[in-house]
Amino acid sequence: MASTQGKVITCKAVVAYEANRPLVIEAPQAGVQILYTALCHTLGVARLDPRFYRSTRKKTCAANLNVTDPEGLFPCILGHEAAGIVESVGEGVTEVKTGDHVIPCYQAECKECKFCKSGKTNLCGKIRGATGVGIMMNDRKSRFSVRGTPIYHFMGTSTFSQYTVVHDVSVAKIDPQAPLEKVCLLGCGVPTGLGALWNTAKVEAGSNVAIFGLGTVGLAVAEGAKAAGASRIIGIDIDTRKFERAKNFGVTEFVNPKDHEQPIQQGWGTSVIVGVAASGQEIATRPFQLVTGRVWKGTAFGGFKSRTQVPQLVDKYMNKEIKIDEYVTHNLTLEEINKAFDLLHGGDCLRCVLKPYFKICKKHQSWVYG
Amino acid sequence: MASTQGKVITCKAVVAYEANRPLVIEAPQAGVQILYTALCHTLGVARLDPRFYRSTRKKTCAANLNVTDPEGLFPCILGHEAAGIVESVGEGVTEVKTGDHVIPCYQAECKECKFCKSGKTNLCGKIRGATGVGIMMNDRKSRFSVRGTPIYHFMGTSTFSQYTVVHDVSVAKIDPQAPLEKVCLLGCGVPTGLGALWNTAKVEAGSNVAIFGLGTVGLAVAEGAKAAGASRIIGIDIDTRKFERAKNFGVTEFVNPKDHEQPIQQGWGTSVIVGVAASGQEIATRPFQLVTGRVWKGTAFGGFKSRTQVPQLVDKYMNKEIKIDEYVTHNLTLEEINKAFDLLHGGDCLRCVLKPYFKICKKHQSWVYG
Repeated sequence: MASTQGKVITCKAVVAYEANRPLVIEAPQAGVQILYTALCHTLGVARLDPRFYRSTRKKTCAANLNVTDPEGLFPCILGHEAAGIVESVGEGVTEVKTGDHVIPCYQAECKECKFCKSGKTNLCGKIRGATGVGIMMNDRKSRFSVRGTPIYHFMGTSTFSQYTVVHDVSVAKIDPQAPLEKVCLLGCGVPTGLGALWNTAKVEAGSNVAIFGLGTVGLAVAEGAKAAGASRIIGIDIDTRKFERAKNFGVTEFVNPKDHEQPIQQGWGTSVIVGVAASGQEIATRPFQLVTGRVWKGTAFGGFKSRTQVPQLVDKYMNKEIKIDEYVTHNLTLEEINKAFDLLHGGDCLRCVLKPYFKICKKHQSWVYG
Repeated sequence: MASTQGKVITCKAVVAYEANRPLVIEAPQAGVQILYTALCHTLGVARLDPRFYRSTRKKTCAANLNVTDPEGLFPCILGHEAAGIVESVGEGVTEVKTGDHVIPCYQAECKECKFCKSGKTNLCGKIRGATGVGIMMNDRKSRFSVRGTPIYHFMGTSTFSQYTVVHDVSVAKIDPQAPLEKVCLLGCGVPTGLGALWNTAKVEAGSNVAIFGLGTVGLAVAEGAKAAGASRIIGIDIDTRKFERAKNFGVTEFVNPKDHEQPIQQGWGTSVIVGVAASGQEIATRPFQLVTGRVWKGTAFGGFKSRTQVPQLVDKYMNKEIKIDEYVTHNLTLEEINKAFDLLHGGDCLRCVLKPYFKICKKHQSWVYG
């Protein structure tokens, strides 16, 4: 048992008080020590678009919220792409123990619910009713607080912190030899891209693949397509600077939609939606497009079963079967989180890996220290 | 060889001169003798909504049309759900001969093109470039005319006529013992519903099925769901009169959306779009719905490979494995086509089977006789 078993840990974390505002560093309480956390563009959307996240400054009762679109109760600790070491375990936890190297999994896998057992989906439903409203399952409370005020969890992971608390079904034990500063990317973007290709679209050798958007997820799709033996891998982006880099990930052709007057998305096949749109934004088509052979799907975490398959992806990386290093373009500390967001929006950054290290920073007067 | 081989046949047909107008009976020229043709609701949409069908009164050159949404060049002979007897065959036709009982297939099956060979779709591409613009493949001309003026084909079938001409890849040879006045329904609606369930949604035993709209296609979906062993088969329609009848097709529960203030389409799974919407109408959703496990598909002719599988469906009917008789609620002559449309829109009619029999009808002054 770790010395902190059952005790409160005082540490630093980045707290999101409301949408579309710089994040604030605070001191919450909580058992996974986060060693590295990266920034996923889903959070970029969150921060940029205040509509995406529901404000809870009025302290809306969790039970009254619509749990189909609940991510983003404030104040909360964001972050869902990370790696760390188990600091302590609660009662009944059997599959991880103190000292294990782990990747928190925002998509849980209980292996027991009807979804896990169906063989058709990775969307485990066991703890969704709690993680969807920013709390823990057993007592329906948060494990984080700042000066006595509860702070919501986010996506069941909340990795923008030195320590976090996750459900046992939301953590994957990985090879302790794996470099955490790299494999933290297996918490979201890279598996999402690979899995969109392998698990959701199920692309076969000889297929043509078109990828809209050449960020980390798009490049992982390209990597997956190349591994699957796709014939043409067409990268589509409105930022032409992204094209050269994409070649290294398997993209064979480039299209900038701005160079074309006609829509470039004509064609036949399966379209897989990845990621989270701004609130209220919809996709639309004429039903005739579906009737005549197009299929519209989406993927969450690339359809991977998290606790089972994240360790396998770590092994693939260790065996040099999948890239990770090439996606890490920047390294900062968690204290520099707002700078990291700016990098992400700039377009050059694929992934910025943050160390949860804090020091007093006079430049950011808005930051509050616990 | 039939006596009409290579010769012009003068016969009666129903000509659609433009959208949203009563149909007019004319005398075109043409090798399948149509014995029975039914009315599919897709045509109902066509007649009701002038936007759906592109007017060609300006004689737009076919080559300039967008072949992705071309059905409906005027003047044309509509109709795509029928049965008949081969009257004559052209050069190179090997799989049917004069006297064969057949069902015209608006979705061709050449068995040679990349789509037919793919194993993934029934959307044969071989003659699409011709049928999509209302003409025949070999000389890119129509086989119909009225007083010297060419009349377009429709969906490669044009069954609202005593005789029609179809491509060899658009006709399925069936059991000559099968009653044509019943199995004509296997030209569209019944296979579309059964196949949406069996081939496209691939519903398994124990699944829950919700059916929006309890017309012929919806009831065929219910029948398919029952055969597949679905647990709950929920029929949804705004016309409550349809509920009682639907029980006979396997529907276990009913929902009238008008009785509910909240949307009733919440849920998780695969949605299959069937049929043709009015032009310009779109379907829309938040991408999050797809990312969290919903799949949006469509089906054309239920995914059945027409020439291979229509004869198998006829055999299933003859073996009492699928219903057909129960869908035929009305019988009229082709001369009464406009009355048949009215019946279809009234809601009581599932299928009205028309005999291509004509007599002078004083009541309909707008009809023209060749």
